[in-house]
Amino acid sequence: MLVRDIDQIPAVPYGQSALKRIVFGESEGAPTFVMRVFDVMKGGASSHHSHDFEHEVLILKGEGVLKGDDGDKPFKEGTALFIAPNERHQLVNTGEDTLRFVCMVPLSGEVSP
Amino acid sequence: MLVRDIDQIPAVPYGQSALKRIVFGESEGAPTFVMRVFDVMKGGASSHHSHDFEHEVLILKGEGVLKGDDGDKPFKEGTALFIAPNERHQLVNTGEDTLRFVCMVPLSGEVSP
Repeated sequence: MLVRDIDQIPAVPYGQSALKRIVFGESEGAPTFVMRVFDVMKGGASSHHSHDFEHEVLILKGEGVLKGDDGDKPFKEGTALFIAPNERHQLVNTGEDTLRFVCMVPLSGEVSP
Repeated sequence: MLVRDIDQIPAVPYGQSALKRIVFGESEGAPTFVMRVFDVMKGGASSHHSHDFEHEVLILKGEGVLKGDDGDKPFKEGTALFIAPNERHQLVNTGEDTLRFVCMVPLSGEVSP
């Protein structure tokens, strides 16, 4: 078993004014999927892209919009987002505070360096 | 894309004084892994068991201990837990408030009824 405080995990820059932490991944022996936590500063956003694997996201703090081909969908703490493979998407922080979310991907979506 | 408020998802009883919500699973077209959210009332606990698939857990609210064969490990909001396949485990609410956590499993660990 591994027990980690997510704030103690080293963060790397990501997207526009965002930070990414890999909580459990290939390096920790995760067999199937990877937990990542993102902090998006005020005015920032995740990458606007699509890929052949899914996201399952839970908003932990803050608010924003999920941009997709079918328009913008608002979210806040307690909102969960499912983004299917190949759906174009971007999470934008539209609030006054930092946006934090946990985003899960299959192992193939997050290969360790 | 699916956008869901986790508090609006129907909950079912689970473990000892706990509730379980399946946020995204087989029914929602999840290809690889399943997001579940658990609320454990004061004094309650998840099931004490082991199984052949992993858990990746993030504590959202409250505090407690992860019971395992190597002892008790405390957790609180912002703690992440990795429980490897076949590790015996139980999450116990030791706080005054409801414990809430998100717990991911591979698709094989959560088959829709």
